Amino acid sequence: MKIAVDAMGGDNAPGTIVEGAVLASKEFGVDILLVGDEGVLRDELSKYKDDNFAISIKHASEVILMNEAPSIALRKKRNSSIRVAIEAVKSGEAKAVVSAGNTGAVLAASSIILRTIKGVARPAIAVSLPTIRGTSILLDAGANVDCKAEQLFQFGIMGHVYAKYMLGKINPSIGLLSIGEEDTKGNEATKGAFQMLKKSSINFIGNVEGKETYKGNAEVLICDGFIGNVALKISESLAEMIEKSLKMMFAKNLRSKIAYMLIKPYLKAFKKSVDHNEYGGAPLLGINGICIISHGNSTSKAIKNAIRVAAEFVKKDVNAHIQQDIELNLEIQDSKQKKRKFWSHIKDSIPFPLEKGRDD
Amino acid sequence: MKIAVDAMGGDNAPGTIVEGAVLASKEFGVDILLVGDEGVLRDELSKYKDDNFAISIKHASEVILMNEAPSIALRKKRNSSIRVAIEAVKSGEAKAVVSAGNTGAVLAASSIILRTIKGVARPAIAVSLPTIRGTSILLDAGANVDCKAEQLFQFGIMGHVYAKYMLGKINPSIGLLSIGEEDTKGNEATKGAFQMLKKSSINFIGNVEGKETYKGNAEVLICDGFIGNVALKISESLAEMIEKSLKMMFAKNLRSKIAYMLIKPYLKAFKKSVDHNEYGGAPLLGINGICIISHGNSTSKAIKNAIRVAAEFVKKDVNAHIQQDIELNLEIQDSKQKKRKFWSHIKDSIPFPLEKGRDD
Repeated sequence: MKIAVDAMGGDNAPGTIVEGAVLASKEFGVDILLVGDEGVLRDELSKYKDDNFAISIKHASEVILMNEAPSIALRKKRNSSIRVAIEAVKSGEAKAVVSAGNTGAVLAASSIILRTIKGVARPAIAVSLPTIRGTSILLDAGANVDCKAEQLFQFGIMGHVYAKYMLGKINPSIGLLSIGEEDTKGNEATKGAFQMLKKSSINFIGNVEGKETYKGNAEVLICDGFIGNVALKISESLAEMIEKSLKMMFAKNLRSKIAYMLIKPYLKAFKKSVDHNEYGGAPLLGINGICIISHGNSTSKAIKNAIRVAAEFVKKDVNAHIQQDIELNLEIQDSKQKKRKFWSHIKDSIPFPLEKGRDD
Repeated sequence: MKIAVDAMGGDNAPGTIVEGAVLASKEFGVDILLVGDEGVLRDELSKYKDDNFAISIKHASEVILMNEAPSIALRKKRNSSIRVAIEAVKSGEAKAVVSAGNTGAVLAASSIILRTIKGVARPAIAVSLPTIRGTSILLDAGANVDCKAEQLFQFGIMGHVYAKYMLGKINPSIGLLSIGEEDTKGNEATKGAFQMLKKSSINFIGNVEGKETYKGNAEVLICDGFIGNVALKISESLAEMIEKSLKMMFAKNLRSKIAYMLIKPYLKAFKKSVDHNEYGGAPLLGINGICIISHGNSTSKAIKNAIRVAAEFVKKDVNAHIQQDIELNLEIQDSKQKKRKFWSHIKDSIPFPLEKGRDD
């Protein structure tokens, strides 16, 4: 099995990425297809004297930078490492792709080149969420803004499959992130998704409020990509503020400095437990191919772990299960629902009322 | 000046509410109109022997419980303390109302009875947010889901007025909570609001990502009520998890127990700095009247502080300033914007493409 790795993507590329690939190949015995500037990558690889790893290089002359606008960059740089790596999956040369590069570009290129699994409207980024009860996953973490009810519903199905086959949860609990527990609480999209999820084959536990998130009762938490992104980033921001505040407290006087020295190893252990580098990367679920998106500042360990996740995705045939479960629940996304929505959209937009009877 | 206080609302009513009212009347010299069961309230008041406070009672025979559905409760309980207190503002008997009761019911009753300030589409709940740089405010914290661009824009204007007149910020910085800094990042509503805010008279600093939230660069942070609710509640949830994790760490062995004893007073101080009881309550901005919503489990100190906030709202004539600034920025919400939206909605809903030229 060969995994394509975008060797030029991320803040620490290519050195850290190549190191992660070497580690993964040695530890997990996977073949790696490093994609990027051939000369540069050859130099990087030459740093590793032993040769008990299976790494080949595929040349890509261009690099999409972290802050470039994805749509423009993908159009202008036809030979970018991101695109070439994803095309290697399309052609069958590789089974999966790992990239720590420009997330928007990875997302766009995957969607355009690989397309979605049959029946899936939009792909979603699934990320790990540390909770009191262990690791949950949250999706979508930022691939889609302005999601419709049907999309949230499909995220639930895909999250179920991921938690079941990749995380080994037997009957994963699926929650819908909302502003109240009752099915009447939420916005238009979540209220619609609630009704569909209720009828589905998965273990839907209902709405989960923000305040319940880190309790971990939902092993899979569904939301649109705007909410998901804000929720995750605001958590990071708060954790950072708490850390800074604690540090300031600890620096106050001798008493607190001693306390800090005593507690430091435990704080370190805590930070490690919520460290994204341990998880490696976030899969883009629903893509007709396998794509793992790693954090821009991933360490070599994170890249190694992302490659491990990619290889497991292949072995466990996750995409086939997604397609099966989407088909199994297809009738829930009935056409009546769509029809009603069509008219309600028009009705909302029109400044004068329609005659009664036309809106269903 | 008389402030109406819903004496029956909240987890600790009426005892704690009455105590808060007594404290406020003594400390700030405001007249209080306690609304609730007359007999019960007379008993509560009799606990305070000295009489250097100005409190009168207005009878309301019913109580809306914390977990009741607001719309049903308001219809069924015509004589609830929430409704009677808000009607006292409508009639001019009181200048403002404070309630720690069912937030949905307070919100609905305020909107129905008091209506919005001229030009304001929807009211928004503004809450205090502790940041590294001090206190910011976030709105909307949960009054509106599915906000349109115009509503987010108006939240910006109202937040500006609140920060300027109530918090004494000279030229408050206004940020729009979104998923990227560029004006092209966000959902349909935030992208529309960005363009309007850019043209407005207020100090708009652009999009603020979740990860920047607690840095406090934006003194006012705008978002729709769904996002605001999730963002705040998820923060609470994370803070709780961190606290639990720290406690578990501290309990590990003698070394960590000693560290905990040394650090305990500082942790307490930190918790106090982010305690909502210090702020008292969240104003419902945009209502044609003054309404302060307190947390359900408010202490008497929180109620006292909420009454102080209500009195300041009156003194500083915040609503007149909101109306002025909404009028000043009225032309930005142009009809062209609305027209374009009308067609784009229809276009989105129609499963076949419209002829070119009809969508503008």
